[in-house]
Amino acid sequence: MVVQKYKDMLSGKSVIRQLSEFATARGQEIGYENVFDYSLGNPSVPVPQEFTDAMIRMLQEKNPMELHGYSPSLGITSVREEIAASLEKRFGIPYRKEHIFMTSAAAGALAHAFRLVTEPGDEILTFAPFFPEYHPYVDLTGAVLKVVPPNTETFQINFDALEEMLTEKVKAVLINTPNNPSGVVYSTATIKRLADLLREKSAQFGHDIYLISDEPYREIVFADVDAPCVSKFYDNTLMCYSFSKSLSLPGERIGYLAINPACPDAELMVNMSGQISRGIGHNCPPSIIQLAVAQVLELTADTSIYETNMNILYNELIKLGFTCVKPGGTFYIFPKALEEDSIAFCQKALKYDLILVPANTFGAPGFFRMAYCIATEKVERSLEALRTFVNTEYSNR
Amino acid sequence: MVVQKYKDMLSGKSVIRQLSEFATARGQEIGYENVFDYSLGNPSVPVPQEFTDAMIRMLQEKNPMELHGYSPSLGITSVREEIAASLEKRFGIPYRKEHIFMTSAAAGALAHAFRLVTEPGDEILTFAPFFPEYHPYVDLTGAVLKVVPPNTETFQINFDALEEMLTEKVKAVLINTPNNPSGVVYSTATIKRLADLLREKSAQFGHDIYLISDEPYREIVFADVDAPCVSKFYDNTLMCYSFSKSLSLPGERIGYLAINPACPDAELMVNMSGQISRGIGHNCPPSIIQLAVAQVLELTADTSIYETNMNILYNELIKLGFTCVKPGGTFYIFPKALEEDSIAFCQKALKYDLILVPANTFGAPGFFRMAYCIATEKVERSLEALRTFVNTEYSNR
Repeated sequence: MVVQKYKDMLSGKSVIRQLSEFATARGQEIGYENVFDYSLGNPSVPVPQEFTDAMIRMLQEKNPMELHGYSPSLGITSVREEIAASLEKRFGIPYRKEHIFMTSAAAGALAHAFRLVTEPGDEILTFAPFFPEYHPYVDLTGAVLKVVPPNTETFQINFDALEEMLTEKVKAVLINTPNNPSGVVYSTATIKRLADLLREKSAQFGHDIYLISDEPYREIVFADVDAPCVSKFYDNTLMCYSFSKSLSLPGERIGYLAINPACPDAELMVNMSGQISRGIGHNCPPSIIQLAVAQVLELTADTSIYETNMNILYNELIKLGFTCVKPGGTFYIFPKALEEDSIAFCQKALKYDLILVPANTFGAPGFFRMAYCIATEKVERSLEALRTFVNTEYSNR
Repeated sequence: MVVQKYKDMLSGKSVIRQLSEFATARGQEIGYENVFDYSLGNPSVPVPQEFTDAMIRMLQEKNPMELHGYSPSLGITSVREEIAASLEKRFGIPYRKEHIFMTSAAAGALAHAFRLVTEPGDEILTFAPFFPEYHPYVDLTGAVLKVVPPNTETFQINFDALEEMLTEKVKAVLINTPNNPSGVVYSTATIKRLADLLREKSAQFGHDIYLISDEPYREIVFADVDAPCVSKFYDNTLMCYSFSKSLSLPGERIGYLAINPACPDAELMVNMSGQISRGIGHNCPPSIIQLAVAQVLELTADTSIYETNMNILYNELIKLGFTCVKPGGTFYIFPKALEEDSIAFCQKALKYDLILVPANTFGAPGFFRMAYCIATEKVERSLEALRTFVNTEYSNR
């Protein structure tokens, strides 16, 4: 008598989960330091000491009833103010607390964003390659997620495909830049063209098309990369932010939804988010974590290791003959597999203790993802395994 | 183009919120210490020092990547184990980690419980007086909440009314004992009779009826009160627990769903809960808070003040001629107003700086709620105001 749809979801076992289980088992055999596990997008640098200090200071000094008391349903007012001020300073957009809604990381922000602007049956478009969790996130709201096929040359937006799919049913477009899994950052030209198209189609259809911008990797951008602030280009932008990657706090579930002040319904939508929460069992992220991140808004973990790792891997992959767009940010790289079937490719890599993720569930079959949020020393040691793998399995290329 | 149903919800302003705004405004005029604010169910005793010490110790000593890393989707394994062991020790029910799902307090547990066992259109029964948030919690899942009218003599279950409403459409019954707002604890006789009835009706209808037991006040029970563990009496029990009240941590959003091991689908339901999370943007409560509460499972805040306050208020109310069931737990008391219209009654009380909440939204018009989670000294000072209020406004009784 339990609800069948959730029961059914259990049968689809995640490829990443299976690979990670393989890595753990193999690690027990040969030592985890000898398994080159590129499967998981888990930050590998510590949170800034200032965050830890802020937590300890509050625990030692603050009245516990205040510190651990209920947060207002939209988030702690002072925290929302500080986030708004920081966004204004950073991007020159006049955010105020009325535009900020505190969430349980990006997943919580997206859960509210989808419900704000779509009814069951409405369509949301996203772009391959994409984070596969978007499917359950959207499907379980009753809206329909449609995936625009990738431009595999650049992993910027495939506008021909987008124009074809951008019908009247579409109420929102969901982007993720810097992108998981491609590592690519959408350029100013891409964002401008997307914004122009959405304005044109909104006018043509007579209804707003919202841009939901999933930005957990916003702070992980490499040198000299053009990484525009999406909200600057399109009024109806719902920015979904998470501190998980920038502060290396994925387990603490903290982020926010920031509605562009130029969006006519911005303040209304923030208030509506508080109503949505009542239906989904979200009642604000934990108070102490809200208060602590507000004290380190100008900081990030030392993410420079990700760029170091990217350069080592990118150079080696190119040397070995892979086709690969150079990542502009994140801690992912997304090369083309050396055979058409990237699942078979990643299966063979396991023999060399290389854990690579085939990109079929990311909507880009033929590619694979490496998450290089691991120690640089380990990346370096993995190169030999990579060379042996390629030279042994693909010597006839 | 925003979604109308959430917009519409904004127009219904909560009575409690309005009263609390009045209290704040009046407090600015005459000093908050002179406003006898009985409106809010916010714990008024600090979290045990052991919790604070555990938090600080982990922040100082643990590897931050481990401490703040992703929790598995069902919760941190060791935390689930410790909660199961603590429940077994306490109630003699063989809980294992497989029966425990970590949630964002009781609201998160309820959000998962409702979705586990009801499809849109199914009915959930609850009992007046009830926590008014149950309405948005249930309504927004698509299920239908029906409220069984109260037995105003005892605030135990009105079984005649229940039998009439317990039709084939009912998939779950939701109880809250110790109860907000009545303060009453369901007796062993009540729970037994309810369990018998649910077993009988499950057999008659040929489908399971689940008992969803919302237990945030489980640890706040007064001397010599019969406070049975609900799960002991009915296999298909979904216990929804929160540490908000027992540990005075309402802002940290931590609790769990515990499925009775005797429930045939217990382990399946815990796994299904992880799938439900993907649709509602819940990805586990914060890691550090999970780890910290696991270290203080045998403790509570010093809640004895609530019983002291209850006795002072109860005795005065009886002396003043109120009809009132003596609370067995919580920090609420629920007397009958001195006129039929309890909204008018509470409105008049404002003149005496007494903030009382009319019980119309709790499904028991004619009654009012006092939340006595305030300093005992303030309760004592409020008695004079209460006497003046009653003697002035209701001198002709």
